[in-house]
Amino acid sequence: MDMALKILEEVHQFGIDRRTEPIIAIGGGVCLDIVGLAASLYRRRTPYIRVPTTLLSYIDASVGAKTGVNFANCKNKLGTYIAPVAAFLDRSFIQSIPRRHIANGLAEMLKMALMKHRGLFELLEVHGQFLLDSKFQSASVLENDRIDPASVSTRVAIETMLEELAPNLWEDDLDRLVDFGHLISPQLEMKVLPALLHGEAVNIDMAYMVYVSCEIGLLTEEEKFRIICCMMGLELPVWHQDFTFALVQKSLCDRLQHSGGLVRMPLPTGLGRAEIFNDTDEGSLFRAYEKWCDELSTGSPQ
Amino acid sequence: MDMALKILEEVHQFGIDRRTEPIIAIGGGVCLDIVGLAASLYRRRTPYIRVPTTLLSYIDASVGAKTGVNFANCKNKLGTYIAPVAAFLDRSFIQSIPRRHIANGLAEMLKMALMKHRGLFELLEVHGQFLLDSKFQSASVLENDRIDPASVSTRVAIETMLEELAPNLWEDDLDRLVDFGHLISPQLEMKVLPALLHGEAVNIDMAYMVYVSCEIGLLTEEEKFRIICCMMGLELPVWHQDFTFALVQKSLCDRLQHSGGLVRMPLPTGLGRAEIFNDTDEGSLFRAYEKWCDELSTGSPQ
Repeated sequence: MDMALKILEEVHQFGIDRRTEPIIAIGGGVCLDIVGLAASLYRRRTPYIRVPTTLLSYIDASVGAKTGVNFANCKNKLGTYIAPVAAFLDRSFIQSIPRRHIANGLAEMLKMALMKHRGLFELLEVHGQFLLDSKFQSASVLENDRIDPASVSTRVAIETMLEELAPNLWEDDLDRLVDFGHLISPQLEMKVLPALLHGEAVNIDMAYMVYVSCEIGLLTEEEKFRIICCMMGLELPVWHQDFTFALVQKSLCDRLQHSGGLVRMPLPTGLGRAEIFNDTDEGSLFRAYEKWCDELSTGSPQ
Repeated sequence: MDMALKILEEVHQFGIDRRTEPIIAIGGGVCLDIVGLAASLYRRRTPYIRVPTTLLSYIDASVGAKTGVNFANCKNKLGTYIAPVAAFLDRSFIQSIPRRHIANGLAEMLKMALMKHRGLFELLEVHGQFLLDSKFQSASVLENDRIDPASVSTRVAIETMLEELAPNLWEDDLDRLVDFGHLISPQLEMKVLPALLHGEAVNIDMAYMVYVSCEIGLLTEEEKFRIICCMMGLELPVWHQDFTFALVQKSLCDRLQHSGGLVRMPLPTGLGRAEIFNDTDEGSLFRAYEKWCDELSTGSPQ
């Protein structure tokens, strides 16, 4: 919030006309969210434009209406639902970011793949390393008649995200597939800050949830294996020592409280398919946790 | 904003469920606006209820969707348009506030009267002193067959306010009659803070604007005289030494910038009638200013 207020002071001194001059935010997700909040507040609403410069913000923060800042050590505790007037998408920014941050964005892409799009999952399985190597600048190096995985994957990720967000912009419906990977990870991310990037924390959460799905019979062992291998191919962490079972319990307990008494857990029910579950029992969660630790704490699936 | 953040810390520690538990703001307009902003921000929108305890907030801040705090020495520079889920109106609170604060509320009531409701103006002319004396608790002291000016005046003030606000909740239409008295007064109010209450600053602005209306032939001398006398009967200031012509020029210049290039000046065109003007010339504004100072700087109309 300090940063949002600092931006507001600059905006005020600059003297913009909030009816005709938008604030333009150029940066990663944190920047877009903070500037978005500042714009939401200035004169009770000043238009703003999002220009994402990272892969993660390109497919995630640039879509939807959320702004936010951390508060009281909680992620995005304060914010608004005010959509930008536009989001300008230019993939050439992505060549400027480190490889680890590309993987970070791939985690949110994988989320949409696991929830809604088998084709996107298979694209990431096959082209994940190429996307990391080429930093999503592949168009220039490909033959004309080949599909461009950078262009296809970003388009599908945004389209599937929009399918989920557009009918539920104010989050009145709490059954959100886009929450996959976001049940435990916010607390993990804040706990170890700044050790894990957002997408890395999300991926660790997703990896555990894949074990939960498998434990209760929604995924086969082979599907689970493919997903974990794909995550590793994307150079994403699949386990973390601070992701304890106590953290799982606390996070789900908080979620119960904030989601109208239901846990609303999105779980994959196949590759590219998912449903919301409210009845996962603690026993299954714990058995999945133990198996997840057994198999992944050493760094590779068995 | 410091106060809003302090409230947010308390709200966070209290641990409310933003889906089912509203924040209840009980107080005057500043309290309702600050708590409203805090509620707007908490988890991107937590429902809140307004319980006004002053006459001014009863007829003004309790209506509409605005929240706000001062920033960079500007009134309500930061805020949101988020309506409360309810406003609970109980006039018995008003007996707890000082006489000067009743007059303060009467100024906003007079604004609606001058803009839209001749009957309300005449009620204030006749019953102004009684309303001040009885602190809007008159129901108990009146015969059964007499109209209760406290009940009628508050109801009409809120109804006329709603007529103006409801179709324009986000202020997309900048031609707002409710802006009467609010063109110069925000800068006056901030300049002399805390010497003038909000309604007092508004009334000084309205008194000057009445002189402008008269100068350009929209009001007769007699109508002007009645309005100024009514203001004095409501024990409201009608002139202030810090309301300089330079302040008028600066305020109107800022307004031009923030209102899409038009000054959009609401002016009474009779008792209880008004229109928006964009072509008031500087000469008329200045002649009105001189006459206003001549006649009112000594404390009573000539």
